[in-house]
Amino acid sequence: MRATTIHAPFDLRVEDVPDPVVQDPTDAVVRVLRACVCGSDLWAYRGQSARRPGQRIGHEFLGIVESAGADVTTFRAGDLVVAPFVWSDGTCDYCAEGLQTSCPRGGFWGTPGSDGGQGEAVRVPFADGTLVRLPADAASDDHLLTALLALSDVLGTGHHAALGAGVREGSTVAVVGDGAVGLCGVLAARRLGAERIIALGRHTARTDIARAFGATDVVAERGEAAEAAVRELTGGQGAHAVIEAVGTEQSMRTAVGIVRDGGSIGYVGVPHGSGTGLDLSVMFDRNIALRGGVAPVRAYIPELLPDVLDGSVDPSPVFDLTVGLDGVPDGYRAMDERTALKVLVKP
Amino acid sequence: MRATTIHAPFDLRVEDVPDPVVQDPTDAVVRVLRACVCGSDLWAYRGQSARRPGQRIGHEFLGIVESAGADVTTFRAGDLVVAPFVWSDGTCDYCAEGLQTSCPRGGFWGTPGSDGGQGEAVRVPFADGTLVRLPADAASDDHLLTALLALSDVLGTGHHAALGAGVREGSTVAVVGDGAVGLCGVLAARRLGAERIIALGRHTARTDIARAFGATDVVAERGEAAEAAVRELTGGQGAHAVIEAVGTEQSMRTAVGIVRDGGSIGYVGVPHGSGTGLDLSVMFDRNIALRGGVAPVRAYIPELLPDVLDGSVDPSPVFDLTVGLDGVPDGYRAMDERTALKVLVKP
Repeated sequence: MRATTIHAPFDLRVEDVPDPVVQDPTDAVVRVLRACVCGSDLWAYRGQSARRPGQRIGHEFLGIVESAGADVTTFRAGDLVVAPFVWSDGTCDYCAEGLQTSCPRGGFWGTPGSDGGQGEAVRVPFADGTLVRLPADAASDDHLLTALLALSDVLGTGHHAALGAGVREGSTVAVVGDGAVGLCGVLAARRLGAERIIALGRHTARTDIARAFGATDVVAERGEAAEAAVRELTGGQGAHAVIEAVGTEQSMRTAVGIVRDGGSIGYVGVPHGSGTGLDLSVMFDRNIALRGGVAPVRAYIPELLPDVLDGSVDPSPVFDLTVGLDGVPDGYRAMDERTALKVLVKP
Repeated sequence: MRATTIHAPFDLRVEDVPDPVVQDPTDAVVRVLRACVCGSDLWAYRGQSARRPGQRIGHEFLGIVESAGADVTTFRAGDLVVAPFVWSDGTCDYCAEGLQTSCPRGGFWGTPGSDGGQGEAVRVPFADGTLVRLPADAASDDHLLTALLALSDVLGTGHHAALGAGVREGSTVAVVGDGAVGLCGVLAARRLGAERIIALGRHTARTDIARAFGATDVVAERGEAAEAAVRELTGGQGAHAVIEAVGTEQSMRTAVGIVRDGGSIGYVGVPHGSGTGLDLSVMFDRNIALRGGVAPVRAYIPELLPDVLDGSVDPSPVFDLTVGLDGVPDGYRAMDERTALKVLVKP
């Protein structure tokens, strides 16, 4: 089959690789119908996260089960399924409590020895624990299929951020980060009943999506000016709930600056850089909580799926560029240059 | 009256100061029956927190209302009351939601212009919002009075840490810090239904109190050896809930090292030093939450008071040395040299 590989910073290739097969009886092989490029893939693309030459890449996909091992009981060939961005065994303590990202037998797509999502097919370990079935008729609904793909990462990650930030009915929420995850954080906050959602961002194409997703206010300023603007909008107090969907020192500093005393920062931006951006003395004096991390999206798919199926939650606008498999390197380039928000891949 | 003042590092004096009087109609004056010395007072004593020469000190006290301003409606002369370690107006948004430490009109005892707890009497701003009434007959019960004094800070702070750590029925809890707050964290965790409480500490006098307060295990190791010991005790996973009651970089690092994936660190140790001890990448990968800060003990007193009154929660063993007002400097010395855990002051 053909799949995307990374050989060096900015050197992505789409090349022939061995066809995936069932190796363990708990495996399934999934033929990819939709995949996409994540903001976190760019860290590998830019060389800021190390990769071995030739390693696969991509961790978001949905598709059709092609074959399943003897011990797979939940799925069979022909099933439409979505995969979360980590696989997990479905049987350990952590999986049982919905923290599949800590499964000792779990792993990330594209790590050495595993397939990545940006290819024609993927061998899925622990298929019963990992995959979630989708209605068969969704396979013929192009728009719905795109929306469902967001369940593999960005929608669940936005939901995780909103939970970490403590969003509930009537909350005032501020969202730092106008990428696909930040925008899905807006969507998740609205779904959880937030009354006011302040999106920080300066790119109109993105803030327009934020407004469509439920943002009531947009703050285009950055740094201290952004903090002042959010305080101005919140009677000087700041937002109860802050979603941090960037992962830089500056974005975390902004998050601390705009959160209300006693509030919480739900952080899902993969941490980068040497500093944390956290001033613990300020957080201490103001009782600011920090909750989040890598999102156990497998736990959230069953809850979010019905809302995506009935259209009440539609994350599909985050995909603003579609490519075929051969177009993946161009897609990365577009996201790296911020001419695309999130790239959809149709292999 | 006589009160404790601080003039320079290690230079505490007990000297004559003006008698407190009602200045604002919302003030009350409280004659101090019991006060004490806090671990955080030692930071001022050692010069690690700046103080103006002659500034008052001490933020924990209970006593008898001596006079009250015209607008004080809840208290009158003769009432036995306990004061939390900050005053608060009782009417703002933050007070209404139980975060009195963020009250814009609130303040800390002993800040310039205010009285400290380690003196004969205290002018209490916003008496209605600040003070909590105690049963009059407690005034003649020496043991109970000592236990009730812990409501002014350490018991409520331990409770705040336990809430921040997410302690609930059946939790496994680890407590970093064997001072009075850490020990009260043990007590609070037991009260909230923790099944297993692991106290980190190497001073037998203190770990004996921890066991009496409900600790099921004691870990005497420090640093990485302590982390290994806690993991050994928890099937390799760590503790769901960790109470951080020290405030140093090392103690926070230990807290991160012993918390279970998906768990929470309830931090109440006043942060000291330049580093936070937080590795955000580790916290991200393991979904570790951080919640806590300066405890709004005013909010907790009504909930904790009945348990102290009926003896089901008795924090009094944390007081292991009693002095009169003239003995306060000796009391600080004893705590600084760790020959005393917490010093009770009977003015």
